[in-house]
Amino acid sequence: MASQVDLVLIGGHVVPVVPEGVVLEKYAVVVDKGIIKDILPAADVASKYQAAETVDLKDHILIPGLVNAHTHSSMTLLRGLADDKPLCDWLVEDIFPAEGKFVSDEFVRDGTLHSAAEMIRSGTTCVNEMYFFPDAAASTFEAVGMRALVGQVVLEFPTSYASGPDDYFAKAREMFAKYKDSKLVKLSMAPHAPYTVSDPSFEKVLALSKEFNSRIHLHLHETEPECHDSETKTPSMMCHQCPEHCRPLKNMQRLGVLNDQLIAAHMTQLTDDEIAAVAAAGTHVTHCPTSNLKLASGICRVTDLLAKGVNVAIGTDGAASNNTLNMFAEMKLAAILAKAESKQSTSVPAATALRMATLNGAKALGMDHLIGSLEVGKSADIVAVSTDCIEMLPMYSAISHLVYAAGRENVSDVWVAGKRLLANRQLTTIDLSEVKSHCKKWHDEIRDHHAEMEAKKRQG
Amino acid sequence: MASQVDLVLIGGHVVPVVPEGVVLEKYAVVVDKGIIKDILPAADVASKYQAAETVDLKDHILIPGLVNAHTHSSMTLLRGLADDKPLCDWLVEDIFPAEGKFVSDEFVRDGTLHSAAEMIRSGTTCVNEMYFFPDAAASTFEAVGMRALVGQVVLEFPTSYASGPDDYFAKAREMFAKYKDSKLVKLSMAPHAPYTVSDPSFEKVLALSKEFNSRIHLHLHETEPECHDSETKTPSMMCHQCPEHCRPLKNMQRLGVLNDQLIAAHMTQLTDDEIAAVAAAGTHVTHCPTSNLKLASGICRVTDLLAKGVNVAIGTDGAASNNTLNMFAEMKLAAILAKAESKQSTSVPAATALRMATLNGAKALGMDHLIGSLEVGKSADIVAVSTDCIEMLPMYSAISHLVYAAGRENVSDVWVAGKRLLANRQLTTIDLSEVKSHCKKWHDEIRDHHAEMEAKKRQG
Repeated sequence: MASQVDLVLIGGHVVPVVPEGVVLEKYAVVVDKGIIKDILPAADVASKYQAAETVDLKDHILIPGLVNAHTHSSMTLLRGLADDKPLCDWLVEDIFPAEGKFVSDEFVRDGTLHSAAEMIRSGTTCVNEMYFFPDAAASTFEAVGMRALVGQVVLEFPTSYASGPDDYFAKAREMFAKYKDSKLVKLSMAPHAPYTVSDPSFEKVLALSKEFNSRIHLHLHETEPECHDSETKTPSMMCHQCPEHCRPLKNMQRLGVLNDQLIAAHMTQLTDDEIAAVAAAGTHVTHCPTSNLKLASGICRVTDLLAKGVNVAIGTDGAASNNTLNMFAEMKLAAILAKAESKQSTSVPAATALRMATLNGAKALGMDHLIGSLEVGKSADIVAVSTDCIEMLPMYSAISHLVYAAGRENVSDVWVAGKRLLANRQLTTIDLSEVKSHCKKWHDEIRDHHAEMEAKKRQG
Repeated sequence: MASQVDLVLIGGHVVPVVPEGVVLEKYAVVVDKGIIKDILPAADVASKYQAAETVDLKDHILIPGLVNAHTHSSMTLLRGLADDKPLCDWLVEDIFPAEGKFVSDEFVRDGTLHSAAEMIRSGTTCVNEMYFFPDAAASTFEAVGMRALVGQVVLEFPTSYASGPDDYFAKAREMFAKYKDSKLVKLSMAPHAPYTVSDPSFEKVLALSKEFNSRIHLHLHETEPECHDSETKTPSMMCHQCPEHCRPLKNMQRLGVLNDQLIAAHMTQLTDDEIAAVAAAGTHVTHCPTSNLKLASGICRVTDLLAKGVNVAIGTDGAASNNTLNMFAEMKLAAILAKAESKQSTSVPAATALRMATLNGAKALGMDHLIGSLEVGKSADIVAVSTDCIEMLPMYSAISHLVYAAGRENVSDVWVAGKRLLANRQLTTIDLSEVKSHCKKWHDEIRDHHAEMEAKKRQG
């Protein structure tokens, strides 16, 4: 007798990611109570299951939801405010002043809603988030039904969010208490970077990470000056706060922060020895190719990291430096850039890039027991990619097309924990007109303030 | 009194490319008899013009049509057939066998229609084409209303298109006669590459280029082995056909082919002296960043070329190695890759990338008197990019968004010579169901043949 289930998705193709490289043609995914109950030939569904809802996705590829493993969601509101500048000038002249003036609970709430809409529309179901006012971000992700690991930011200096290190830590504790039972939102400790966080604060981060069994999310070895200035103790914005003359990764190792809870974003500057140390520590790396190229930061040695067994995930970074939150573009760039960087066109083949954007992201976030692949028992975090357009034809390989041909616009439907967040390109939990009207308000204020700053700069 | 015109486009923003970096807010473009007659504040239109048709594009940016300065259109039919392989293996094991078996007048006709649909949908109005059966391509572009420079391919060996060098040249002569009065299609000579064309054939190419005042379109310095093997005369597929021990560019210079009619595609391998030679010769370079990364060919030194005054355009290459024909993705990659390659985040700012994808392409193709910018007197080859979606908000700079935030899907309308080829995302001159059904037929045949070849290879 057919058993009763909540949902059946009849796919043209199912790419489960595990096992890697497999494409199941004319398969269906069966979902009950938010969990994947079965993956079976579509022809066998009728005899085995009676579904409350069946969705015909025969012209689609079903994949696990993409995991954006490094971003600053509400920076969507600063998208394209300044481009084509060095990281340091861009931060000091444009981003920090705008943040200092505008970032607030409301800014983060509006920006996160905007970014959630953009991520869901482009197939991202889970995000590794780092920004101020994490409660505003966390509650927004929960409200719209997206999965997130939300970083509890720590900086050495005061911001509109907290008065100093003690306050960041106090707020982090409150957050861990508040979200301890959340189904969708988990928390990490998020010390911003070696050049903005002191050794004593890193020690407290480590203690909290142990107490709450949480990940640590950190910008690390993003640029050459960060490494050079730390090693030589050259006074600069990028020099680490440790008194030692050493590269930041070495200092993280000394402090015990380089461990299997660490998600290190960027990592464009790595020696062979450092790659070995990262591998030995079980540290996770998030590769952000668009942001790294755009800010001329460097190119992460993904091929060598993968060869040493390091778990490498993919992130968009914030929309202020990308300038999108499009994981399809990021997957493709990760795949093709690795080939140029390693001078091997066999490096990071399509199936590997897809795994990096799904399962490796889930592993980095400590969620691979739950998400990252379509497997029985995992959460129904599923994305449908339409193949019914000439840009996806002919299709000799579904996996090749997911990485090399698909665009964000090919995402038609998205489920998280069995809940449909995107239905035929329509968001079900976010009102786009609300996003747009909030965005307009912030745009006008930020534009005027930025113009004023630019005018002042011109006057010297 | 208001003068009668064919068409007025009321733009939210107009980015004319000339002058560079300019954004005109609330401007309109007036078109008559296929020519841009005026560009003026939208508020002034009513008093000056009476239009047969007015199109409201207030939530759009109007730009000149994009110029795809290097592609092989009908290779859309081979999209994703094989990936993640070295250039040489990919050509010998996958592409050449498929081409040998399938390429025909019908293949090129169907493939070109497919690619024209894809290019129009993504804002490309003019293409620099190189493939077999150029008459099939040229007549298809003419029929659908796209502008093209169609290469007359020359190879040293026979193909399904021609029996040998003499036959390629005879067919080229016929083509120049046939298309001499075409409004949309111009022809170039297209010797495939130094490793597939002999010196005597290059001399004939040069003579025909002079006789017909045509461009020469060539793959040059695409890979390191092409240069190394030619310089050392190492017997290989990539070694040039010239008996001299020298790099291919040196040989082109010796033959007189390195001149201001030459469009050299790829050019990932360039010494300082070679950049100086290219600059001195007035040779045009087409940068194909996606294809060069994906095939691990190398990275073109765009920043240095531009600094020396070389005209650098952008191309997608064929969909078999890209795997799209998306000039928006190519523009963004050209902008961000140049920053990493030069280690300067100020390199190739957004306005430069946009110029490379429009005016520089037009210059490369010898069409900048006609297209490449929105200027009075130029042809009305215009693209409207929608800004009414959250991925394009907030918008502090229209030019930044065109390069860093826009996707192909944001193209809503396209005109070539005043004729609307895309209207609210709908193609007006191409039947998509026809494209899809042809594509299905080719897909099935090519898939079966490729599987057969793979099986044979496994058996040894």
